[in-house]
Amino acid sequence: MRAERKPLRSDMGCSDTTRIRVQGLDLMQDIMGKLNLGDFAFLEIKRRLPTPDESVVFNAMLATLVEHGMTPMAIATRLTYLGAPESLQGAVASGLLGMGTTFAGTAEGSARLLQEVLAGEGAQVPDDQLPAMAESIVRRLRETRQPIPGIGHNLHKPVDPRAPRLFEIAAKHGLSGRPVRLMNEVAAAAERILDKPGLLPVNATGALGALATEMEIPWRLCRGLAVIGRAIGLVGHSAEELENTLAREIWERTEAEASAHVQW
Amino acid sequence: MRAERKPLRSDMGCSDTTRIRVQGLDLMQDIMGKLNLGDFAFLEIKRRLPTPDESVVFNAMLATLVEHGMTPMAIATRLTYLGAPESLQGAVASGLLGMGTTFAGTAEGSARLLQEVLAGEGAQVPDDQLPAMAESIVRRLRETRQPIPGIGHNLHKPVDPRAPRLFEIAAKHGLSGRPVRLMNEVAAAAERILDKPGLLPVNATGALGALATEMEIPWRLCRGLAVIGRAIGLVGHSAEELENTLAREIWERTEAEASAHVQW
Amino acid sequence: MRAERKPLRSDMGCSDTTRIRVQGLDLMQDIMGKLNLGDFAFLEIKRRLPTPDESVVFNAMLATLVEHGMTPMAIATRLTYLGAPESLQGAVASGLLGMGTTFAGTAEGSARLLQEVLAGEGAQVPDDQLPAMAESIVRRLRETRQPIPGIGHNLHKPVDPRAPRLFEIAAKHGLSGRPVRLMNEVAAAAERILDKPGLLPVNATGALGALATEMEIPWRLCRGLAVIGRAIGLVGHSAEELENTLAREIWERTEAEASAHVQW
Amino acid sequence: MRAERKPLRSDMGCSDTTRIRVQGLDLMQDIMGKLNLGDFAFLEIKRRLPTPDESVVFNAMLATLVEHGMTPMAIATRLTYLGAPESLQGAVASGLLGMGTTFAGTAEGSARLLQEVLAGEGAQVPDDQLPAMAESIVRRLRETRQPIPGIGHNLHKPVDPRAPRLFEIAAKHGLSGRPVRLMNEVAAAAERILDKPGLLPVNATGALGALATEMEIPWRLCRGLAVIGRAIGLVGHSAEELENTLAREIWERTEAEASAHVQW
Repeated sequence: MRAERKPLRSDMGCSDTTRIRVQGLDLMQDIMGKLNLGDFAFLEIKRRLPTPDESVVFNAMLATLVEHGMTPMAIATRLTYLGAPESLQGAVASGLLGMGTTFAGTAEGSARLLQEVLAGEGAQVPDDQLPAMAESIVRRLRETRQPIPGIGHNLHKPVDPRAPRLFEIAAKHGLSGRPVRLMNEVAAAAERILDKPGLLPVNATGALGALATEMEIPWRLCRGLAVIGRAIGLVGHSAEELENTLAREIWERTEAEASAHVQW
Repeated sequence: MRAERKPLRSDMGCSDTTRIRVQGLDLMQDIMGKLNLGDFAFLEIKRRLPTPDESVVFNAMLATLVEHGMTPMAIATRLTYLGAPESLQGAVASGLLGMGTTFAGTAEGSARLLQEVLAGEGAQVPDDQLPAMAESIVRRLRETRQPIPGIGHNLHKPVDPRAPRLFEIAAKHGLSGRPVRLMNEVAAAAERILDKPGLLPVNATGALGALATEMEIPWRLCRGLAVIGRAIGLVGHSAEELENTLAREIWERTEAEASAHVQW
Repeated sequence: MRAERKPLRSDMGCSDTTRIRVQGLDLMQDIMGKLNLGDFAFLEIKRRLPTPDESVVFNAMLATLVEHGMTPMAIATRLTYLGAPESLQGAVASGLLGMGTTFAGTAEGSARLLQEVLAGEGAQVPDDQLPAMAESIVRRLRETRQPIPGIGHNLHKPVDPRAPRLFEIAAKHGLSGRPVRLMNEVAAAAERILDKPGLLPVNATGALGALATEMEIPWRLCRGLAVIGRAIGLVGHSAEELENTLAREIWERTEAEASAHVQW
Repeated sequence: MRAERKPLRSDMGCSDTTRIRVQGLDLMQDIMGKLNLGDFAFLEIKRRLPTPDESVVFNAMLATLVEHGMTPMAIATRLTYLGAPESLQGAVASGLLGMGTTFAGTAEGSARLLQEVLAGEGAQVPDDQLPAMAESIVRRLRETRQPIPGIGHNLHKPVDPRAPRLFEIAAKHGLSGRPVRLMNEVAAAAERILDKPGLLPVNATGALGALATEMEIPWRLCRGLAVIGRAIGLVGHSAEELENTLAREIWERTEAEASAHVQW
């Protein structure tokens, strides 16, 4: 056993009999009735309030992550709600657990890529060298057989409509700097090198990774943005399931077909 | 096996190659850059956009649920993040699972109480009969040894400061009707009947239950509001844990003390 | 803040550089290679080793809970595994969360019923009064419109074949006492009172509740037996999903049908 | 939308009014009262019954994974149980989610290593070449700055007592073949190359990875073995928490200390 102990200290929030403080602010006077929920999320992650420009862009980023229709996550939440209607928190958690590398990995991946190459020496690279930097990134990923994160989309072709909209909002609000430019150059380099002109534009996850980097949100937390958005969406699916249950039908069909071959 | 099958139908969202629709709206044009995250949550739950007044009140309601400092949920998220840093979704889900009857039950309980008594015949009860209705509610709960939801607080004494602030915002925005009045009358009746004058005012969960009822949000979904808020808070705690890990220290202290009595 | 602190103490297990102790036993010498997994589960819950008779009965009880085919829980696990293949623990947890009141509630309910009526004064009731006790239980549940836990089954008609097999194993191993007798009397009373002769025998959850009571396992932990069994089954479904993925197909069918009505 | 659909088919289990089949066996006649829980887990994962030798070894493997005392997972389960006592499944799931790369990764890693090098051409390598194979493995991992999975332990020094016990049981039951030999050679090569004689023997996770490989259990499912064992352990901790709650004390101490620096 160690003799010394590290002190436990947190600055998230605390309260006494009459006061409640969150991130150094007074919950009742500074937050309630003043901050919208997206701004509060920004405050929790960045430990400071967003500027008006950041507020618009950050809320738009989260808006791309709330509702994607009948995803595997939404179906899992509905099935779990059927089994445990006493704990809505369990149904939402059940769906959130599917927000893993298959679906949330590419925003994380593009943010990581941008943050790693633009940090350290990369911060000194002049803007006119970004196309060359993008080209070497794409070649390196190709050589090591790694996917290029944040470009192309298997449904939205040729263009994922969320990406240009995110970049439009960001540009209007002054958040279109080197990460956005480099992400676009990566897509252009990939189209050239893979000889797929116009077919591999930046997608929603690439745009999210770029904007998270603009806001200096660490890539390890990008999945957290997806979790925040999706938690809202899964409560929404629970609300629809409460009125019109689909879970039992999905279960019964699946069970019947999966066992139809059995010879007793 | 049944011969007939119920069709599966959902109106949450869908997309094709160039379009993305959410709740009947165009994601890019109607939502991104226009709706804040709280408004989007309202849209997901109520299936319509909030009015400007509802937007302020609903965002304020969610704001009371985001950050409560170092709760059992926050500690669980931090411990899980230590063990599975590859899946932030798992850390947040782990914490959310603690959002059960102990902590989220009373908002649900007060919403249920108000929604049950104000529906059906209760809708016909004239306003000046609400004090009598409250008195009979309190007496019935007392007789069946059930707790009175939504009043008093074990830390915030005598007044939970979030409740008057929520009611103030709601009043300013025209959302202070019969549910708010009845909730206040329940608190007053409890103080009279239990002879604790001034000691059992409406608390935050009582105010949330009343305002959810004003907005016609079913009581079964009230726990969902807590889940939405807390998901944001738990991503925040993950962000702090990433910079300053407390989990290992909490673990080591607990493990050492819990086994200190063992004689080998 | 309180001045005094409760000491933290646990007797589950501990270790030093060369030794590992679990429930007071030496893991390497007393458990590994000697106890089967069901016996270890008994040890964890009861804090003592099972007798040979208890071992057979307890393993049989758990065996009824492992694999129920393509349940909502199994489907949720498979969908979550699709989204987060990096965290099998998340896929299993996702499915476990559906082990709630809808599916696990009746074993809990019958155990609770038996434990409450057979404790205190109920312990003095002579055996020949058990039929009358059962009759009053059924009448009371009927009057308060509560379901009678542990009897009848919507698929296995008229008899759930697991129940007689569990009771047969228990009788052979000396674990067929008052709880089993009372559970059978409850079923008989329900058939008489509801005039459904032969149609409401004890089902698997009723048998599990009775045998848990024989073993003095608190009703609050009965859901834990289901969780143990189902965790194994969900790892099994993950293994099958790894070879033959069904999740994507279930997702795509559901998504396509749920949005088929949308007019763009 | 695709025109063709893949049929859904599963062979895990199914039932009709009078029969229940699991993995092609009759649940009542072939499993209940005959298979212990570890054997049932083997059946679920391998789709066949274990031999008597495999039964002993597989139960011993699982036994190493059930109870590790007051781990972060156990603390998370206890904290979640405090908040949501109505859903024990949520408390266990909450703890299981911490069974990630930090704690479960090395068994997975050593199994993967062994399965990759012993498959394909590696299957042709004569036994007397295994030391050379081990040496090249260690050098390759060192060059690419990857950890060597399955050797050494930060608490159990110099020897993790579970590893020799697992290997002893396996040898006695005829499951000590090339994977076990190669794992031991990897440890020996690491000690030589890193010049730490006697300090880096195979640990419990290395032994588990080797024995899973002996049994031809895919490395992707090794984390599933940990999940099965730990689910049992976490139900055990819930049982202790039910009698002697530690969660509230851990919470209150942590909350008080974490905010002690706040100046109001």
